[in-house]
Amino acid sequence: MFEPQDPNRIQLNSNGQLKHFITTEGLSKALLTEILDTADSFIDMSEQQVKKVPLLRGKTVVNLFFEASTRTLSTFELAAKRLSADVLNLNISTSSTSKGETLKDTLQTLEAMHSDMFVVRHSDSGAQHFIAQHVSPDVAVINAGDGRHAHPTQAMLDMMTIRRHKGAFEPLVVAIVGDILHSRVARSQIHALRTLGAAEVRLIAPKTLLPRHIEMLGVKVYTDMNEGLKDCDVVMMLRLQKERMKSALLPSESEFYRLYGLTEEKLKLAKPDAVVMHPGPINRGVEIESSVADGPRSLILDQVTNGIAVRMAVMSMAMSGQVAEKNNRMEAAQ
Amino acid sequence: MFEPQDPNRIQLNSNGQLKHFITTEGLSKALLTEILDTADSFIDMSEQQVKKVPLLRGKTVVNLFFEASTRTLSTFELAAKRLSADVLNLNISTSSTSKGETLKDTLQTLEAMHSDMFVVRHSDSGAQHFIAQHVSPDVAVINAGDGRHAHPTQAMLDMMTIRRHKGAFEPLVVAIVGDILHSRVARSQIHALRTLGAAEVRLIAPKTLLPRHIEMLGVKVYTDMNEGLKDCDVVMMLRLQKERMKSALLPSESEFYRLYGLTEEKLKLAKPDAVVMHPGPINRGVEIESSVADGPRSLILDQVTNGIAVRMAVMSMAMSGQVAEKNNRMEAAQ
Amino acid sequence: MFEPQDPNRIQLNSNGQLKHFITTEGLSKALLTEILDTADSFIDMSEQQVKKVPLLRGKTVVNLFFEASTRTLSTFELAAKRLSADVLNLNISTSSTSKGETLKDTLQTLEAMHSDMFVVRHSDSGAQHFIAQHVSPDVAVINAGDGRHAHPTQAMLDMMTIRRHKGAFEPLVVAIVGDILHSRVARSQIHALRTLGAAEVRLIAPKTLLPRHIEMLGVKVYTDMNEGLKDCDVVMMLRLQKERMKSALLPSESEFYRLYGLTEEKLKLAKPDAVVMHPGPINRGVEIESSVADGPRSLILDQVTNGIAVRMAVMSMAMSGQVAEKNNRMEAAQ
Repeated sequence: MFEPQDPNRIQLNSNGQLKHFITTEGLSKALLTEILDTADSFIDMSEQQVKKVPLLRGKTVVNLFFEASTRTLSTFELAAKRLSADVLNLNISTSSTSKGETLKDTLQTLEAMHSDMFVVRHSDSGAQHFIAQHVSPDVAVINAGDGRHAHPTQAMLDMMTIRRHKGAFEPLVVAIVGDILHSRVARSQIHALRTLGAAEVRLIAPKTLLPRHIEMLGVKVYTDMNEGLKDCDVVMMLRLQKERMKSALLPSESEFYRLYGLTEEKLKLAKPDAVVMHPGPINRGVEIESSVADGPRSLILDQVTNGIAVRMAVMSMAMSGQVAEKNNRMEAAQ
Repeated sequence: MFEPQDPNRIQLNSNGQLKHFITTEGLSKALLTEILDTADSFIDMSEQQVKKVPLLRGKTVVNLFFEASTRTLSTFELAAKRLSADVLNLNISTSSTSKGETLKDTLQTLEAMHSDMFVVRHSDSGAQHFIAQHVSPDVAVINAGDGRHAHPTQAMLDMMTIRRHKGAFEPLVVAIVGDILHSRVARSQIHALRTLGAAEVRLIAPKTLLPRHIEMLGVKVYTDMNEGLKDCDVVMMLRLQKERMKSALLPSESEFYRLYGLTEEKLKLAKPDAVVMHPGPINRGVEIESSVADGPRSLILDQVTNGIAVRMAVMSMAMSGQVAEKNNRMEAAQ
Repeated sequence: MFEPQDPNRIQLNSNGQLKHFITTEGLSKALLTEILDTADSFIDMSEQQVKKVPLLRGKTVVNLFFEASTRTLSTFELAAKRLSADVLNLNISTSSTSKGETLKDTLQTLEAMHSDMFVVRHSDSGAQHFIAQHVSPDVAVINAGDGRHAHPTQAMLDMMTIRRHKGAFEPLVVAIVGDILHSRVARSQIHALRTLGAAEVRLIAPKTLLPRHIEMLGVKVYTDMNEGLKDCDVVMMLRLQKERMKSALLPSESEFYRLYGLTEEKLKLAKPDAVVMHPGPINRGVEIESSVADGPRSLILDQVTNGIAVRMAVMSMAMSGQVAEKNNRMEAAQ
C-alpha cells in the first residue's frame, strides 16, 4: 500500500478521485487527462470565454498566501468567484507562523470557520503536503506554489495549452529552457509531460542552473540551446528567478540572453509549427525576444486564459472528491 | 425613561428589538437568549456546518476597522458573506481621523453610499457608541471590539459555546482567568453571564491585572488560582494583552504561567466534566498548557465555529430591527 | 471622420453608444443626458436607496489602481457589486510598470483572464486613453481619474446632483471655485456643463491656480470671489490639491480661506436658493466653513449617493456598448 510520504496517498480519496492537489508527481495519466477535460469544459467555445458556473456555491475558499504573489492570487480569486464560491484572501507573513505548531493553530482556526478549501502558497518546499496531512478531512488543499518544489496548477495549464494546440502528447518533443534549478514549475512540468506521454522532454540550461541527477527523471539535458531546440514541437521558457539566486550563480543578463534567450533566429531551429510558451511575467530581452513573445507562435496569453480554467477544474474536482469521501465515511459509520 | 447614555436606548428599536449591537451590558435575558437561539439556527446539525442564508441579500456591510485585526475581520467578513451581503473592507488608520468631526465626515460619506451596516473596531472605548449616536437611522452598528470596553460578539460566542455544551446557565460556576484589566472580552462576558443567570462568576488574576472595584459587578475575586478553580464547571482563559501593558505591570511569562497558566494539574481542581475556553490566538505555555488546549475538554475550536454563527445572528437581528423601525417611522409619518 | 486622437473615436461604438468612458470632452448632450437618466433609474425613489440589479452578473470588473484612493476605489467596488459583477481589486505601483510595454503586458494578462471591464486610476494624464487604445475589443475602460486631465465620473455625479435639484441646466449660472490648476475634476465639469447647456460657467481662483488660456473653454474667469459668486445658482467648491502643488504656489491656508473659502457670509452673494457642492473629502475651515458644508444648501452627501448611481450607469452602458459592438463584428464576419 501507500507510504504516508506518497503524495497519492494524500491527494486521492478512497475512490481514487482527486481530493487535494499538491503535486503532479505520481498522479495517473487518466487523472491528469480528467483535469484537462474538465478545464476544457469551462471554456465557452462560442464566446472564447471562461464560463461562470455554480459548482462551489455556498462553499468558502480561503486563499492562504504565506508568500506574496499578486498574479497567482488574482487567478485563484477569479477562478473561485467564477465557481460562485465565497472567497477570503489572507496574506500571512511566514515570520508570525514560524513554528509548526502555530501554523497548525492557524489552520485549525480557519477550519473551525468552516472553510471548504485552502489555496496555499508558501516559500517552504513541502508546506502544502504538511498542511494536507493536518487539515480536517473535509478541507481540500490546493498548491499555489511551494518553495522550489512544485507549482502544479501552472504545469497543468501548460499541459492544457499544449493539448489545445497540438492534440495528442505522444508525438511531441518538448524543450524546457532556462533556470531549471530554481523553478518550481519545471519539476511539475516534467512529471506531467512524462505521465501524459510526450515522446521526449529536453532540458536546456547552463550547468549552474541545472539540479544534480535531473536525468533520472527521464529527460535529455542540453547545455547548448541550438542543439536542444532542433526539431522541437514545443518550447517552454522559464523565468530567471533572480530573487532566488545566490549572486555567484547569477549570469549577466546579456550573456544569458545571448546563450539561452529565445530569439527569432534560434526559434528557426525548432519545427516550423513549433509553439512557444512562458509562465509570465516576461523579461523581454532577457529570456525572450519581444517579437517572439508577441508573435504568432506565442501561446503566452492562452496560458493565462487556460490558467483560470485549470484552476476551476482542480478546485471543483477536489471539492467533489472531498464530498464523495465524506459520504463514504458516513456510510461506513452506519 | 432611558438616559441618552444608556446603551439600551441606542441598541433597541421602539419595539424593543435589537438594532445596534454595542455591548452586552443592560440587554435583557430574553434578548441574549434570542441571540443564542438565532445563532443555533445557523448551524446545520446534519452537516455540523454553518449554513449559507439569504437574509442580507442586497444589503451592504462595511467592515470599518480603525484597529487592525485579521482574525476578527475574517470572521465578520465570512459571516456577512454567509448572509449573502455585499461586503466592503476598510482599514482606516486612526491618525487620519483623529478629530471627531472628521470621523463624522467619514461615516456620513459611507452612509451616503447606502451602507446598511457598519461593523466597527476601534482602539477608543466608546467609539461605537459615539458612532451609533451619529449614524443615520437606517444603519446598524455592530461592535467588533472597542478599546478596553467591550467585545460583545466574542462574549456571546462564549455564551453560545457554554450553552451548547452545558445546557442551562443556572447551575454553572464559571471562572474567568488572567489579564482581566486589559481585556475587553472579560467585561462583556461578566455582563452576559450575570444576565443569563450563571450561579457564580469568578475572576482569577493577580492584583495588578484586576480593575478596581470589579466586585461591584457581582463577581467573586480570587488571586490564588488553585482556590478559584475549585469545583468550576467552565474555565474561560484570557489572552495576555502584552501590547496594552505598561512594562511595570508585565509579569514574566514563566512566572505568570506558574501562577495562572492552565495546566492539566490545575484543571484537576475543577469539576471532572469542566470545559475549557480561550478566545485565541493561544500563547501555548504562557496562558495554557498545550495538552489542555488540544485536549478533550477544550472547546477552543467550537468557539471559532460558534463565532461565525453568533455574528450572523446579531447582524441579521440588527438589520431586522432597523427595518422594523423604519416601517414604524413611515407609519408614524402617514 | 474621426481622428484616432479624438476621444469619441475611442469612447463610442459604431452605433454611437458608449463603450469606454474616458472623458466628458466631446460627448454629445444626448449621451450625457442618457448617462444621467440611467443613473436616475438606479435610485429607488420609495427607499431613497441605490438598487441592486443583475446587469453585470457573470462579468468581471477589475479595479486597476496605479494611484491609491480608498474613497474612489470603494465607490467603484460598491457600484460593481450592486450591478452583481465579480470584482477584483488590484493596486499596482506605477514604478513596476514604468515602461509602456510592461503596462501592455499587464493589461494583456488581465484581458486573458477574461476581464470584462477595467476601472483605471493613474497619475499620468492620458493613461486611460492609451489603455483604451490597446485593450482587446471586448474590454470596457472606465476612467477613475488620470493625472490632471479628467475625472469624468466625478463630473457626471455633479451633473446628476445639479439636475436632481435644479431641473434644467439652461437657466443656471454655475461657479467652480478654488484650485482649478491642479484639478482633474474641474476640466471634466467644464466640458459637461457646457455640453449640457448651462447658461454661464464661472471659474473663481487666484491667478496662480488658473491654467493659461482657460477662457478658451467658454468660461468666465474671476479672481475676486465676491464678484464671481454674484447671482450664482450653483457653487462647486474644489479640493486644494496640496500634494500636487509646488511649495512656491501653495497659498497659506488662512489666506486662501479668507479669499476663496466659502463662508456663510460670501454665500449670501449667490442666489437665495443657490446650492453648494464639494467632491470631498472636505478641508473644513480651508475650503469651506463647517456650517455651510453641513447646512441646508449643501448637496455634499447627495453627491456621494449619486456617485454610486452614476458609476453604475457608465459601467452598465459601456458594457452594453461593448456587447452591441461585438454582435456587430460577428454579423459583419458572417
